[in-house]
Amino acid sequence: MAPTPWISFTTDYGLADGFVAACHGTLARLAPTARVIDVTHLVPPGDVRRGAAVLAQTVPYLPAAVHVAVVDPGVGTARRAIALAAGDGLLVGPDNGLLLDAAVALGGVSAAVELTNPDWLGTQLSATFHGRDIFAPVAARLALGAPLADAGPAVEPGTLVRLPTPLVHAEPDGFTAEVLTVDHFGNVQLAATGALLEPLPQALWVTQRPAGPDHVGAPAVHARTFDDAPPGGLVVHVDSAGLVAVAVNGGRAADRFGVVPGDQLRVTAG
Amino acid sequence: MAPTPWISFTTDYGLADGFVAACHGTLARLAPTARVIDVTHLVPPGDVRRGAAVLAQTVPYLPAAVHVAVVDPGVGTARRAIALAAGDGLLVGPDNGLLLDAAVALGGVSAAVELTNPDWLGTQLSATFHGRDIFAPVAARLALGAPLADAGPAVEPGTLVRLPTPLVHAEPDGFTAEVLTVDHFGNVQLAATGALLEPLPQALWVTQRPAGPDHVGAPAVHARTFDDAPPGGLVVHVDSAGLVAVAVNGGRAADRFGVVPGDQLRVTAG
Amino acid sequence: MAPTPWISFTTDYGLADGFVAACHGTLARLAPTARVIDVTHLVPPGDVRRGAAVLAQTVPYLPAAVHVAVVDPGVGTARRAIALAAGDGLLVGPDNGLLLDAAVALGGVSAAVELTNPDWLGTQLSATFHGRDIFAPVAARLALGAPLADAGPAVEPGTLVRLPTPLVHAEPDGFTAEVLTVDHFGNVQLAATGALLEPLPQALWVTQRPAGPDHVGAPAVHARTFDDAPPGGLVVHVDSAGLVAVAVNGGRAADRFGVVPGDQLRVTAG
Repeated sequence: MAPTPWISFTTDYGLADGFVAACHGTLARLAPTARVIDVTHLVPPGDVRRGAAVLAQTVPYLPAAVHVAVVDPGVGTARRAIALAAGDGLLVGPDNGLLLDAAVALGGVSAAVELTNPDWLGTQLSATFHGRDIFAPVAARLALGAPLADAGPAVEPGTLVRLPTPLVHAEPDGFTAEVLTVDHFGNVQLAATGALLEPLPQALWVTQRPAGPDHVGAPAVHARTFDDAPPGGLVVHVDSAGLVAVAVNGGRAADRFGVVPGDQLRVTAG
Repeated sequence: MAPTPWISFTTDYGLADGFVAACHGTLARLAPTARVIDVTHLVPPGDVRRGAAVLAQTVPYLPAAVHVAVVDPGVGTARRAIALAAGDGLLVGPDNGLLLDAAVALGGVSAAVELTNPDWLGTQLSATFHGRDIFAPVAARLALGAPLADAGPAVEPGTLVRLPTPLVHAEPDGFTAEVLTVDHFGNVQLAATGALLEPLPQALWVTQRPAGPDHVGAPAVHARTFDDAPPGGLVVHVDSAGLVAVAVNGGRAADRFGVVPGDQLRVTAG
Repeated sequence: MAPTPWISFTTDYGLADGFVAACHGTLARLAPTARVIDVTHLVPPGDVRRGAAVLAQTVPYLPAAVHVAVVDPGVGTARRAIALAAGDGLLVGPDNGLLLDAAVALGGVSAAVELTNPDWLGTQLSATFHGRDIFAPVAARLALGAPLADAGPAVEPGTLVRLPTPLVHAEPDGFTAEVLTVDHFGNVQLAATGALLEPLPQALWVTQRPAGPDHVGAPAVHARTFDDAPPGGLVVHVDSAGLVAVAVNGGRAADRFGVVPGDQLRVTAG
């Protein structure tokens, strides 16, 4: 028996409607032996950057799979529908930058196609629900082993739509970096990798950038885990994705600084 | 090997308690080979109409399955527990109108029984958790191929409880229709089918009914997808369920009009 | 073929990040034949008592399984990581009291080990994501049948961290009990078992304790289900977990009293 075909599924569809289930149903009808791991369906509506970040940070821990992701504010417009090969995975979704960070995490894009083969799509093609009518049917066929090249014509990887690279700026006594995500616990993940934090001392200072009158900053501990600071104290650490994160022991760092993704924090020797 | 028995599961149980898992566990114990597709568990508490709408719009995309649905404000009262055969599916839940729109979507009720066979129920029968103690055990047995007629005595389909039909009123220059659902993106789905929208021109006018002093209405584009209007503009289109929906390109139409399910919108040539 | 290995999964990770999926992926990579039942991932962040209650009330309805639970405000500190045998189940998680009520529900702890075998852990060991790096890898191995004793050295059950026992106080004309949980419907579950309610008459009085000027209490019906009170009326009943619960027919009892877990209610003959 062939190994289980795995499919991962990431969207901004929310959990209150039947959208996610209609896609699960489409996968089940076309690929009943496949098993689906839901990454999240609570990407904020239309937030392609957030979808890209959560997918890229999760795929390294998933089995070899077809990863379907749909955060697609341009659904029904001329934006391309694509599938990519990367490492031992395949990625399926809109060509709006959503898939590329995950492709890098899997080892880089080795092939790309545009999803135009009408035999691969659903029998019904709505203008507003391509998750159900394009991406799930294609993912089901790929999960069962159909060749990527049959999904449509090759796309030159250099033409794929890319998201802007988040700001990371090394400085003599630290760095400034963009907030990449804020997680369920209020931890603030920066776009900076752990290597930028490593040379800094134990006593740190964290400031919101650009600094305003209310942004005098706060002392923080360069540490390994939350409990290395006193309760309510700030910790700067390398998080489980290998990125620098600012946390509060027993609290929410995002609320402390009032930051959201796209804002910037500066971390320096304190 | 017999094909996978599929079970779909729709409730208003929420995701923060163990209610959904207790039902999954009951299904797993009685029918370990079955696989479960969760439709949603975020139907607003007790909102039978919303549960009926989401189930009816999702079942056409699910594999042949036993569809269990529990939105059951009358749990523990004299309301009947029922199972229906419809098309290639079976529906299990309370007799309060929740299942009938889905039965129509599957091809219409071909048989109905009341769930009174004590051998089919859980060993424990609580007064307030029939999802775990009645509906899941029955669904598990049906998924494994037990005959519907063994679940209890036949029920005359004409005696099943029905929800009121939502208002749809054709007019010389358009139509008035009840809001059926508001989805995660704020799109307002009306009870009107696409055929009512088709003859209307590209320039439309959408008004809340009954019109109040604050309800002068707004211009909208009769279009195919969100991007056919300028950012922030109103679109009236046929949605992925085949119903007329009002949307805002990049925004939330429900917030624009302040409507909830049960309210009415009028769509006319603009 | 061996029976399906089942794994249940309970956390405070939320559903908006990739944390749950990274654990599912780890389980799928190490134990691809296992199937996972999610209990809930919406335990309030760090609320070990709530996690313990939902897990204990759900495990009796799950198949024989490895139950992984992670509500772990002390992650990365010296708190032990443990696995317990109890009845036909195994429990895996932090040694902070989270697992013990479930162990009792399964029949009591028959063996306990500390998770220190490096061969059982993930290749990467983060300081802040032990669900992915310790608990899921251990659960996968146990689900495939590896002996508990191989996971690490035995722990004396008497040394396991225990949560405080919630207050239950029998009185001549009723009882006072701590609020254990408030569910999705606003039903207030007390720590009192049904035996304390049984001798009380149909007419009851429910008062918040300690009584303040705003806490004069309210009449309630000792009944079987919600509908035994008039709409908006208070019901005191034995809930689906066998505990005394206060509910409002068609409403939210928790809002009526303004109580949260840890508060106390007094139930007496009215």
